[in-house]
Amino acid sequence: MAHYSDIGVFVCFEGGDGSGKSTQSKALAAWLEAEGYGVRLTFEPGDTEVGRTLREIVLSPETGELSDRTESLLYAADKAEHVRLVVRPALDRGEVVITDRYVDSMLAYQGVGRPLELAEVEHVARWATHDLRPHLTVVLDLEPSHGLGRFEERDRIEGESVEFHERVRQAFLGFAAADPDHYLVVDARRPVEAIAAAVRERLLPLLSQARKP
Amino acid sequence: MAHYSDIGVFVCFEGGDGSGKSTQSKALAAWLEAEGYGVRLTFEPGDTEVGRTLREIVLSPETGELSDRTESLLYAADKAEHVRLVVRPALDRGEVVITDRYVDSMLAYQGVGRPLELAEVEHVARWATHDLRPHLTVVLDLEPSHGLGRFEERDRIEGESVEFHERVRQAFLGFAAADPDHYLVVDARRPVEAIAAAVRERLLPLLSQARKP
Repeated sequence: MAHYSDIGVFVCFEGGDGSGKSTQSKALAAWLEAEGYGVRLTFEPGDTEVGRTLREIVLSPETGELSDRTESLLYAADKAEHVRLVVRPALDRGEVVITDRYVDSMLAYQGVGRPLELAEVEHVARWATHDLRPHLTVVLDLEPSHGLGRFEERDRIEGESVEFHERVRQAFLGFAAADPDHYLVVDARRPVEAIAAAVRERLLPLLSQARKP
Repeated sequence: MAHYSDIGVFVCFEGGDGSGKSTQSKALAAWLEAEGYGVRLTFEPGDTEVGRTLREIVLSPETGELSDRTESLLYAADKAEHVRLVVRPALDRGEVVITDRYVDSMLAYQGVGRPLELAEVEHVARWATHDLRPHLTVVLDLEPSHGLGRFEERDRIEGESVEFHERVRQAFLGFAAADPDHYLVVDARRPVEAIAAAVRERLLPLLSQARKP
């Protein structure tokens, strides 16, 4: 069952590659820190020791083809470590946790963009994370053709077709439409500062759960 | 739904550490090869490229404590690769696949010996392996105190308490009791050749599905 921490604030940025998740995560963290909040800026996959090894397996072109299920299970293992060692402890300290990608990325990339049963992928992802959900997920929406870098610079996931990335995009928009209370969709082509302001405005009422150390 | 390959023969050896799985796997493989069958001798975890990395994470004392769910997900990812790259292709060639450990080990060690919901662990393991099951699982039954080596030589899993290993043992016996058509339980203290003969006798009627190349 969906679980929202009643202490700390859990914020997630989602979107395709090049949509500005990293820039916006950092901008939000800097603002919160200036306001005096405890902040934990993090990302998936790979922000734990075990996760770093798993990230290497999943993203390295040298790994060769992984089955969809193997890939999902590795991402899920990364999430299990991430929630246990990073997200949950920071929330318990009353911090604002800002993560660049979370469960939605796994659902979008593994569940929707590929011929795998979404329900099964979601079952595994929710189990891995004890169904801990972000209070707010910001979807930075961008047409795939705007976000992807030059082909020869892309990693294994980025190297998928534009159609694949468009299905991923539609998945994010679908999650947001189904749960507007916990999502904010922003046009990623807007100026960086305008996006940051929209995120801050939406986040403000949630900050009563966060502690200033 | 449980799936048994209708070509090739899938045999699994299960049991605690030191119960003789490796010895018996090799003895059976040697006999089958002498009889002219195609044989694929394999093991879990770690008999694929990705699996080797995962095995290292799970078994190395340097990893530190993993959560039960992380551990289950890593074992499941190893199984997904193992079935896809090793077991399934060999069965499709009509070979006899002999594996030292398979899903039952995951269920016994992750599901029963630890405070995790067995049903959830089984769900993940079955999904990872497309619920492919051995035609015959041989349980080499041994009291834990007979099987474990000296404490200082044990790896992370072997280092668990005797009570833990006794619960694992009872889990294997429980699986066998629930599905006698697909299990053979042998007292692991019997002479090596007597055990090998019992395994051969039980396997003989199944070999009509195997091809002699």
